Amino acid sequence: MNFTLIKTDTKTAARLGKLVTPHGTIKTPVFMPVGTHAAMKAMTPLQVTECGTQILLSNTYHLHLRPGEALVEKAGGLHKFMAWDGPILTDSGGFQVFSLPNKRITDKGAFFRHEITGEEVFLDPAKAIAIQEALGADIIMNFDECIPYPCEKGYAEQSTRKTLRWAEECKKAHTRKDQALFAIVQGSIYPDLRAICAEQLVKMDFPGYAIGGVSVGEGLELLKKVVDFTVPHLPSNKPRYLMGVGLPEDILESVERGIDMFDCVIPTRFARSATLFTNRGRIRLTNRKYRRDFYPVEPNCSCYTCKNFTRAYLHHLFVSNEVLSAILASIHNVHFYLNMMTEIRTAIAEDRFQQYKRNFLEFYLPGDKKP
Amino acid sequence: MNFTLIKTDTKTAARLGKLVTPHGTIKTPVFMPVGTHAAMKAMTPLQVTECGTQILLSNTYHLHLRPGEALVEKAGGLHKFMAWDGPILTDSGGFQVFSLPNKRITDKGAFFRHEITGEEVFLDPAKAIAIQEALGADIIMNFDECIPYPCEKGYAEQSTRKTLRWAEECKKAHTRKDQALFAIVQGSIYPDLRAICAEQLVKMDFPGYAIGGVSVGEGLELLKKVVDFTVPHLPSNKPRYLMGVGLPEDILESVERGIDMFDCVIPTRFARSATLFTNRGRIRLTNRKYRRDFYPVEPNCSCYTCKNFTRAYLHHLFVSNEVLSAILASIHNVHFYLNMMTEIRTAIAEDRFQQYKRNFLEFYLPGDKKP
Repeated sequence: MNFTLIKTDTKTAARLGKLVTPHGTIKTPVFMPVGTHAAMKAMTPLQVTECGTQILLSNTYHLHLRPGEALVEKAGGLHKFMAWDGPILTDSGGFQVFSLPNKRITDKGAFFRHEITGEEVFLDPAKAIAIQEALGADIIMNFDECIPYPCEKGYAEQSTRKTLRWAEECKKAHTRKDQALFAIVQGSIYPDLRAICAEQLVKMDFPGYAIGGVSVGEGLELLKKVVDFTVPHLPSNKPRYLMGVGLPEDILESVERGIDMFDCVIPTRFARSATLFTNRGRIRLTNRKYRRDFYPVEPNCSCYTCKNFTRAYLHHLFVSNEVLSAILASIHNVHFYLNMMTEIRTAIAEDRFQQYKRNFLEFYLPGDKKP
Repeated sequence: MNFTLIKTDTKTAARLGKLVTPHGTIKTPVFMPVGTHAAMKAMTPLQVTECGTQILLSNTYHLHLRPGEALVEKAGGLHKFMAWDGPILTDSGGFQVFSLPNKRITDKGAFFRHEITGEEVFLDPAKAIAIQEALGADIIMNFDECIPYPCEKGYAEQSTRKTLRWAEECKKAHTRKDQALFAIVQGSIYPDLRAICAEQLVKMDFPGYAIGGVSVGEGLELLKKVVDFTVPHLPSNKPRYLMGVGLPEDILESVERGIDMFDCVIPTRFARSATLFTNRGRIRLTNRKYRRDFYPVEPNCSCYTCKNFTRAYLHHLFVSNEVLSAILASIHNVHFYLNMMTEIRTAIAEDRFQQYKRNFLEFYLPGDKKP
């Protein structure tokens, strides 16, 4: 893998880059739609491509439990199994494991119950890397401890040190040269812990660095702070990935602070519950006011859904519980996100990122939150 | 609308025809996939087209209840509302109404409860035609009484006479010249009633004739008998439509007996419950034996699903409850049906329909049912 920093914005830390992987070149800043079980929810790979997707994320935790990495490997790897020939990133399973209610974490790794068979499963750095090597994604992630929020500094420090030890173990366990292993910076909301973690990981020399533990639910102000005090400790010649983020406003603020990569289930999850993104904010299509609205979801949108269907039709599909509602809404939301990323890249290239961000938020945010 | 009988098979009653409608020309014999709520379940119109669909069926009953024909008309009609520019046929709602548990049927029409609002709804011939004119399909259907099976001859006779009276009322109520109104032959399993009904309807001169009341559940032998003693009473220069049929074997037997049009929810309904059609019979993809089966559903199939995915992947999608399972399975099953219809038409054109049917069933039917 090879990352080229093409340009840095003159007014902000926003960056334009190029990430070369075995399955294709990715223009950054990039948003990665999430296909948890080796499948985008309610979308075929063809539709995923047509929405402008450059790279997909899939989940080590879920694929380990079902169908198991051995089967995916026998199928010819994740790309062939799910018929996605573009780049793929797999997370390490750390986030999913540490979200489980009955896990037990030791210095070595994490024990948890298999959610299908009920058996005890053990995941440690070596195992997480072995699974990801069998799956065969282009970019794989370190197995880290995802710190809950809020968290006492004592535990955060102890956990961050564990993440650093595990990072060394991951690096040692990693054998496939065609996969890039990214490290994950933890450290909760503590600037000194984030700094130590980032600096130690940078010493180990990874091809990319992620910022973990910044969940969308914790609010934009916290996200901005963590990104602000972590990014300066990351090298400028390596991609920076903010995990699990986020809403359009989160992405814009993070791009401005020098983040290159994002992933989030929001566009597809919101789509399935009838919440669609438009340039004038989110709309909930089950609302009765859309019953007779014969405009597209977003009149300026070039996605399959907006070019062919009205809000009234989508409202009808949602209230009739038709599967097609999830399909068409997912297509639009994924397209909306990826179109925003294209606009962001163009704006950085043309040295007008701040203006783009201001314009976007001026229309997108509700009255009381406008910039 | 204009129907041309291109050719009749030399050995059987199988026919090759051409049906010209305002939204396109249909090659017969034709199978019509069903989009009940103005939407194919789990398929976009683009995928429906790519599967080779010539004409879609949608349901008057369901669309009257939701979103209501007034809204569809305001949207520009059913074609524009659902973004399907090809031909559409709407049924009259007769079958759905008479399947309801709490309906009350009089000489004038049928009363039933609105399944969403709970209000009493009344449907009669004039209303059924008015709804279908507002929806704007290319082919619309008479409002008939669908006779339950089995049925005493006394009731069947009374009901068949009602269907004939209602046919006259439908014809009178029908005003849109760009829509073809088809009549429905009822008469249960009684040859004399079917004959009377067919002959009376033919006297009224409709552009097409359907055979109603032959549900798939009643078995292939009964279906063959009813078709055998009804078809001779229908004119050869008008299309013949066997409503709600059926399985591939039902379609082959009916084509052999001179039927031109079919519709059925089986391909899409079976798809959603993991049952897929192959040249060697139906397979149930949730079966554990497909867990490690890296072949396509049907190796000779040219559908998107078979060209890109394995049975193992589809098995994984089904056991993981991924929406994509329904999408990919529906694409395959609809393509399987429409490909069979193409093969049927080619076989008739080349005067080898019986041979085609025998070959198809030899591979398709299980050992004890092979021809």
